[in-house]
Amino acid sequence: MRMPSVQVVEIGCFEFREMPVQPPGDDEVLIRVEVTGLCRTDLKIIRVGHRDLVLPRVPGEEVVGTVEALGRRVQGLALGERVYVYPGVWCGRCPACRAGAENLCREMQIMGFHRDGGFGPYVTVPAKSVMPLPDGLATDEAVLAEPLSCVLNALELGRLQPGEHLGIWGAGPAGTLLARAGRALGARTQNMEPDRRRRDLIGGLETAGEACFDVAVVAVGDKGAYREALAHLAPRGRLVVFSGLSPADDQPAVSFNQLHYQEQTLVGAYGCCYRHGQAALAMIAEARVPVRDMISHRLPLAKLDEALRLVETRAGMKILLDPWQKETTS
Amino acid sequence: MRMPSVQVVEIGCFEFREMPVQPPGDDEVLIRVEVTGLCRTDLKIIRVGHRDLVLPRVPGEEVVGTVEALGRRVQGLALGERVYVYPGVWCGRCPACRAGAENLCREMQIMGFHRDGGFGPYVTVPAKSVMPLPDGLATDEAVLAEPLSCVLNALELGRLQPGEHLGIWGAGPAGTLLARAGRALGARTQNMEPDRRRRDLIGGLETAGEACFDVAVVAVGDKGAYREALAHLAPRGRLVVFSGLSPADDQPAVSFNQLHYQEQTLVGAYGCCYRHGQAALAMIAEARVPVRDMISHRLPLAKLDEALRLVETRAGMKILLDPWQKETTS
Repeated sequence: MRMPSVQVVEIGCFEFREMPVQPPGDDEVLIRVEVTGLCRTDLKIIRVGHRDLVLPRVPGEEVVGTVEALGRRVQGLALGERVYVYPGVWCGRCPACRAGAENLCREMQIMGFHRDGGFGPYVTVPAKSVMPLPDGLATDEAVLAEPLSCVLNALELGRLQPGEHLGIWGAGPAGTLLARAGRALGARTQNMEPDRRRRDLIGGLETAGEACFDVAVVAVGDKGAYREALAHLAPRGRLVVFSGLSPADDQPAVSFNQLHYQEQTLVGAYGCCYRHGQAALAMIAEARVPVRDMISHRLPLAKLDEALRLVETRAGMKILLDPWQKETTS
Repeated sequence: MRMPSVQVVEIGCFEFREMPVQPPGDDEVLIRVEVTGLCRTDLKIIRVGHRDLVLPRVPGEEVVGTVEALGRRVQGLALGERVYVYPGVWCGRCPACRAGAENLCREMQIMGFHRDGGFGPYVTVPAKSVMPLPDGLATDEAVLAEPLSCVLNALELGRLQPGEHLGIWGAGPAGTLLARAGRALGARTQNMEPDRRRRDLIGGLETAGEACFDVAVVAVGDKGAYREALAHLAPRGRLVVFSGLSPADDQPAVSFNQLHYQEQTLVGAYGCCYRHGQAALAMIAEARVPVRDMISHRLPLAKLDEALRLVETRAGMKILLDPWQKETTS
């Protein structure tokens, strides 16, 4: 029996469908999906849509798998090799690509957004998006390279320096990775969590209090968190706009005079570049950013509904989905 | 007869007063003011006040003069030497000073704001704020080192790179210096001028049209200019908040989702550091940034009222004031 994929046909719901396996094109690789990560963006994609979503779509932008088949021109990869997939496909020619910001490529195709992703047993991707896993890195841990890549991009754009004070709004998977990556880069870190349930779950979280941050990152889609982060920014501090906001809340009040007199920065961060994926895999493999304890659930893909509820209620941390695991009655 | 100074006793007006000449302290220098520049900030100081203004005050933060007397411990300066005065006095110990951003010093004292400035025949300043003029640099031209310093700070914070496209809102003295400094740094530049009178005066100014700027600098205190600049920012573009806004207009609408998806930056710039003064003097002396043609008026300080009207109506470009020039009937 063929394993089904998850397909979003219209915003608000999804269905399980058996999809044909696409043989890889000349420069492509067919990947057997071993595990795929679920993140809040997937919830958004399914429930309310996303700027970059093109329907119908198999979601899933966090994929680790094994090489199942190789295109005619592909070199340097072996069948059965374990790989992580950088979720973007970029043109390499536009101004953003030439400036080393392929995440802003004019023709960017994101796996799970513009092209089918990992919520199914197989996914076909360009060979240049594929990175072999470092030896000894567990497959499940490697999935966190995707959110960690986005975190590394955010800290790079926030120009975080060793010794600086990093304030993070949110203590979910992204907020936790931001704190761990920040410490790996030599910063002191502090998480604030606006959500009471998650705050109670995690415990020991501080409030911003009198703190003054050199870099602040907002990892919750909450206008109030942005307002608070702006109020706790040091002179020359950088606030990273890491989380999008719902259209109704898209314009938090910003005092331009505050930015002016304090020479503060607001800087957006969206997604990640290929090099961030490489850096993230290395940081996880070398345990500079430990992630194993962040995996709270590993569920069959067939239980996506339950997994989405866990994300929605912030009842879990990182949730992994396995398209091959049989659904068992629990 | 002693020459009078301009003193602001209460916001809204100024008076001419004969002030005692302060003999320099051990680490200070008494400067005979040869010429002082008038800028829009002086108009603001006198008419509506300013965050950093402490009354009563002799304004004037753009000063070129000659050394009239030296404090006991001062070395490396000669009587009669022509000097430019960096308008800030900084502590050297606070986090901002240690980070090379003394313009944000916690104890910053700005000449003409916190301490008396150059709208009078003499001014007493710390020796460490004083820079001898490069040989051959005209006294009147050297005054423009102050606004040019602020421009260099803004372009540094905007991280302008050679070959980039720089959009400047405003074509007054600051806007003109931004364009010339931008070109000296290898950028392509374009000025937009919201003020119809100045636009007619200068001629040949473009509108932003379809332009997309890597760096945009708003050099007019106009909320609409900020809105327009945001709409013409390239992916990863940087908008420099160079001009303060009146409190009622202090919060132009900013789409955080735009910053997020385009990885754009809003960054404030305020004043300048000592090193910007040195760089500005060199750029003017070497004619990398020509300024002579920007001096539209040279008036006796006694005609400050007339000079302020010229600033207010944007009828002139750079206006210089001479505290020693006799008021002549015109």
